[in-house]
Formats: sequence, C-alpha cells, structure tokens
Amino acid sequence: MSKSFLSNIAMVCAVSAPIMLGSAGASAEEMLRGTGDLGLIIERATGSILIVETTSRTTLKRVEGLGDISHASAVYSRDERYAYIFGRDGGLTKIDMLKGEIVKRIVQGGNSIGGAISDDGKLIAVSNYEPGGVKVFDAETLELVADLPAKYGKDDALSKTVGLVDLPGRKFVFTLWDAGETWIADFSRGNKPEVQKIPNMGEYPYDALVTGDGRHYITGLFGEDGLSHIDLWATELKGERILKGYGKGEKKLPVYKMPHLEGWAKASGQFVLPAIGRHEVLLMDSNSFTETDRIEVYGQPVFAMARPDGRQIWVNFAPPKNDTIQVIDLPSRKIIKTLKPGPAVLHMEFTPRGHEVWMSVRGADEVQVYDTQTLKKVSSLPAKKPSGIFFTARAHKIGL
Amino acid sequence: MSKSFLSNIAMVCAVSAPIMLGSAGASAEEMLRGTGDLGLIIERATGSILIVETTSRTTLKRVEGLGDISHASAVYSRDERYAYIFGRDGGLTKIDMLKGEIVKRIVQGGNSIGGAISDDGKLIAVSNYEPGGVKVFDAETLELVADLPAKYGKDDALSKTVGLVDLPGRKFVFTLWDAGETWIADFSRGNKPEVQKIPNMGEYPYDALVTGDGRHYITGLFGEDGLSHIDLWATELKGERILKGYGKGEKKLPVYKMPHLEGWAKASGQFVLPAIGRHEVLLMDSNSFTETDRIEVYGQPVFAMARPDGRQIWVNFAPPKNDTIQVIDLPSRKIIKTLKPGPAVLHMEFTPRGHEVWMSVRGADEVQVYDTQTLKKVSSLPAKKPSGIFFTARAHKIGL
Repeated sequence: MSKSFLSNIAMVCAVSAPIMLGSAGASAEEMLRGTGDLGLIIERATGSILIVETTSRTTLKRVEGLGDISHASAVYSRDERYAYIFGRDGGLTKIDMLKGEIVKRIVQGGNSIGGAISDDGKLIAVSNYEPGGVKVFDAETLELVADLPAKYGKDDALSKTVGLVDLPGRKFVFTLWDAGETWIADFSRGNKPEVQKIPNMGEYPYDALVTGDGRHYITGLFGEDGLSHIDLWATELKGERILKGYGKGEKKLPVYKMPHLEGWAKASGQFVLPAIGRHEVLLMDSNSFTETDRIEVYGQPVFAMARPDGRQIWVNFAPPKNDTIQVIDLPSRKIIKTLKPGPAVLHMEFTPRGHEVWMSVRGADEVQVYDTQTLKKVSSLPAKKPSGIFFTARAHKIGL
Repeated sequence: MSKSFLSNIAMVCAVSAPIMLGSAGASAEEMLRGTGDLGLIIERATGSILIVETTSRTTLKRVEGLGDISHASAVYSRDERYAYIFGRDGGLTKIDMLKGEIVKRIVQGGNSIGGAISDDGKLIAVSNYEPGGVKVFDAETLELVADLPAKYGKDDALSKTVGLVDLPGRKFVFTLWDAGETWIADFSRGNKPEVQKIPNMGEYPYDALVTGDGRHYITGLFGEDGLSHIDLWATELKGERILKGYGKGEKKLPVYKMPHLEGWAKASGQFVLPAIGRHEVLLMDSNSFTETDRIEVYGQPVFAMARPDGRQIWVNFAPPKNDTIQVIDLPSRKIIKTLKPGPAVLHMEFTPRGHEVWMSVRGADEVQVYDTQTLKKVSSLPAKKPSGIFFTARAHKIGL
C-alpha cells in the first residue's frame, strides 16, 4: 500500500497486542479514569513500556512492541490521553494511555534523538541524526506534515539535529550539530513553516533546552568550553556565548556519560547545570547568565533536576558512580542527603507538585519512589531494565 | 442520620441530577477520554456549572444544584478527574468531570471564600468568613479531618480567614482578616496539624497569593497603603512590609471592585499587580520586592493575568469599564491591544501552554475564546451569566 503522505523511509508497522498485567479485557467502565496522574516507564532492553499511576503507585499495564527504545523520550497530547514515544531506531509510537495499547507506530527515520509537540497539540516534530533533519507529523494520524532536511554548507550536506523543543505559537526550535546553527520552524500560518536560521551557535552543539517560559534557548557545546544562548524574545535573534571557559585552566576529566540538558534546572533565579566531566554542578544567574557558584558532588552529574518548587536539586551520576543520588538544598547550597538506590540510577521524574519522585534503578529491575520531604523510600515497583520515566503533566509544560 | 465526622453545621445535601446537553445516558465507552483538556465554567446566577473541553472548544455538560456560587472557585484532584467547588454559601461540591455529575455536596460553613487541595491530593481545605476559620476535609469522602477556628485576642473571637493556599509538604497557609496574622497548618505528620502563627502581617489583610514555587506569600492590605510578605524558605518566618506607600501622596480613587490577588502575575522576574483603586498595574522586582515600573491602563484593574509563558499580561477592569480587556506586552511594557468583548468581562483562564485564553462575558451570556498570538476571537460558547473559569491543569500547580 502506497501512502504518499509518508516519506519514502517511513513505514507503517504492525501493531503488537498489549499484555495485560491485571485482569484481561477491562471494560470501558473499568478504564474510565482521570489521566492527570498517569505516566510511563521505558523498559529499554525489551522494547516495552509500563503504564503507571502515581496516586496509589501502581502499574496498570505493560505495552510491548516499541522497537529499539534504548534512548527514548516521550511527549503527551494536551488531553493527557495519548503518549508519543520517540525511539532510537526512528520509531514514533502513539500510545493510548487509557486502553493501554498502541494506536499507531511508524518508523520515520533511521536514528532519532527526540521529539516535541506543538502548543496547540496538533503537530509532533521528531529530530533525526539519520537522515539529518526534522520531520513533523499530524498528532492525530501520524501523517507527515512537513519534512525539514537540515541542509548546510555549499554542498547541502545533512546535519544531525539536536535540542528539539516546542515554543509558544506553534513553533519548534532545534540545532544542527554539524553546522552550529539553530533553526526555528514557525507553523503559525499553516503546515508550510517559515524557517529562521540563527548561525554561529558554536562548535558541535550536542543538546539544548528552553526555559519553561519559552524565552531562553541554551545550547551545550561539545567543541568549546562554554555554552551558547538565544534570547527568543529579542527583536534580532542571535547566539551569544555564556559561561565561556568554565573549565579552563584546570585538568580535564574523562567524560563517562554526557549530561542531559533536559535535566537542567531553573529555580529561584538560578540555573543549575551538570558540569561536563567534572564532579560539580554549576549555578548560573538566570538574568546575567554568569556563574555564581559551584557545588561539589559525588561524581560526574548526568541529570540535575529541580523539585517542582525549586527548593531541592536531585542529581544522578555517570558510571561508575551511578548507584548514588545526591539531594542539594538550594537555599543553603548544601548536600542534605546521599542515597544509594542501587545499580544504575538512570532517570528521575517528580510528581507534578513535587511531593514524590520516581527513579529508575536499571540494575535492580525496579522503580523506586521517594517522599521528597522525608527523603525516604515509600514504595518500589518491578520493571524490566527501566530507564526514562515520563508523567502526563508534561502535556501542560512548554519545552518539555 | 448522625454523622459524627461532619461538624455540626455541616449537612449532606441531596444530589441533584445533571442535565445532559448532548445525548442522554452516555455509555462508559463514550465517556472514556483524557481529562487534561477539561475545565468548568461557573454559571453564578443559576447555581450551575458547564463542563467544557478546550481541544475542540465545546461544552460537554451542564451540572445543576450547586447552591450560591456567586463568588465560587475550584480546585482539582491530582488525577484531574474530580473538581471541588467552593461556593459563597459554604457549600463544598465534588464533581465527577467524566460523568458530569455531583459525587457529593456538603454545606460546611456559613460564608465561604475559597479553598485549596494538598500537594498529595488527599486533603481539601476551605476558608470561611462565618464561622471564621478553616475546615479540612478528606478529598475522597468529604469527611471532616480537622477544624481550625481562627481564634485571636483575649476573648478568643473568631476572625474571617482569607488567602488560603496550599504549600509543598501537605501544608496550607491562610491569613486572619481581623487579627492580621498568617497561620501555617502542617499536616505532614498526620491529620492533627501543627499550626505556626506569624503575627504583625498588617491591618486588614484581604487576600493573599503564594508564588508558583511555594516560596513567597504576599498579602494585600485593606487598612494600609502597602503589602506584606513572608519568605517561606527562611529559617525564621516573619511578615515584612513591601511596596509601602505605593499610592501615598496622590488623590485616592474610589474602589469599585477589589482586585483579586489570584490574578497577580509573576513573569520574567517581575510581579505584575493590579493597583487598588488606580488606573495602573504595578511592576515589582521579584527578588527585591521593590517597585520597578507602573503601566497606565484603561480602568481599575481586577485581574492582571500572565499568559503561561509570561510574555503577555491580560487585564480586566472594575465597573463601569468592565467591557474591556487590555493586553500588555511585558518586554516592552506597552499595551498592544484593547479588546471590547462585551458587558461584564469577569474572569479569564489560559489554556495550559497559553495558546488560547477563555473569558467570561457575563452580560452577553457567553464565553469567548481568543488566540493569544493573533489576539483574535476564535470561538464563543453560550453560558448563563458566566463568571469563574477553571481548567484541570490547575491540578498540577502549587498554590492555585
């Protein structure tokens, strides 16, 4: 069957049947529930996900057949019913969180690195390494809406794309690893976007974030000792270097795992950043973009995540120190707790108002839940090699 | 039937049958939907609410029998399935947003002024003028959990309570109008709260807000020309005056309607406040709590609400100028649009990521929806004398 709306590398895959954890064949009455307390957990080794709820902390269902999700992320429809999961293999899978089944799955690229959903919930954008560029799909049908190959230079080579996030006004922003350029694709006037290109973003930008207000786009640089920043509210958009030379003049450490910029926290007027290769998190003033402090931590930080109220920062670490979590009290800038959840703590997700945090402990095949006031474990759930955890409250956030 | 868990002034009321707007007797399969895009609209004159969804902008159902909801507000359960509506008559009504019906309704006080839900979703607190104090209920059953009469002075008079909001860690904070005190009720160790009292909050605090990070509690004062502030992250909690004398030395205007502090916006390091009685909104630095600017507006502001990204402030006005909305571009501090939606624009609510805003136009018996990029009306829905609009995304926010 030829589907002209799909690019020639995309294909519609067979939908595999979900495995029920509870009673088989739940009725619509049994499935009737709110979706604000739902979430999913990536089981990376088995290509499956768990659908969970955070009120009673239970697993509702396992869904299989998602392909290679060794580096997967997810976004949610604005009604918090559907999840869109971006797999490493270019797979884009739409999940019905209530029925616990795959609605549709396509393979839209060869090597995908993440995605985003537009503020009106209508468009899903996926960032690809191979072929380099961004593809945009209809959120309802997963039909291709726009293809944006990341061409650069004289011979129109294709760049890997990184740091794809949504912006207010039906826009997406992403960055070209090979070209050091940031592009903004504006879909406000329809499905043929206007694309604005911002050059000179630095050497080998490897990831990026946008602040929760959609104003500041910050890019991590692999090829330079610093970061770059765009004030998206400015009349003229330009990339400017910040924290230049933050590791300069000191002995560099080998980097065991690149930190995730999604994990950068903004709290009480400070950005909290995992320092690449260093046993430190950096504090940066959110107005002046200058370093204000460093906090020494146990290992090389991967995620430095703020509790939703911003009073605590929870940090996990690269191997071989990835059995540990440290909790920083931001007002005093002190480490108030060192936890040892177990081997390979890969990811954390806070409940929407931050009373609890869930964390994947891959080596223990479990997800642990902690009370963020007492810092004590309150529950754990079995999971097969869990990695990313994504709660539906992300549906309501800009740039997640 | 005696129910010892209800206070002696509370009574269980009969639940009135909902009126179906669409087909009668929807099946569970038809009701199966996400709850992240739902909301409710208060129809103040008829004691009814409309349940709406913001994806296709439709009304799903009208629910009647909520009593006097002339000054009503609402909070949501953390799964975004249930709404709790606080009526002026002391009514507390739990609504099932999926089934479109009243689950339970109690009259818990004589004159109620608003409520809050704890961060774990387990407790509902209601603030009462009469009898003065706060009552706390189980969110599941609406059984009374704790009664906190607002006693003050030598003869234990009861104060009206205002400015009740939730704080992280199963806490509520509220303020005593007559005593000028703020109380924090800490339920973290169970259902018998520890209560901390902060005196000297100023003369006749009439309303309060907490910032989205749960850190700053700011109280409006009716009896003084200024506000008071508590840094809730400080080791010693104390009330400090801010913006003292912001209207001093100038001719005072009569106040046609008190501004709502819930409408205070925090955006890009600035608070935006409706100035009492003045045709101005005030900007206040969110670190130093000093005035940085004033913006002249069309009338006496009631709500000054930030679009979720904080780039725009939408302002409505007290009578007789309540047919108008002004939109302020915060970076330039200019009014970029003056809209005339119609008679008596009472309230606004943004969609969670801010692409649209809904507003109640009471005198036109309709709710209008605007695109926040083009500032054009995109839809309108009939409603009977609509006032407050509350979307389920509030479930995930601190202090709303």
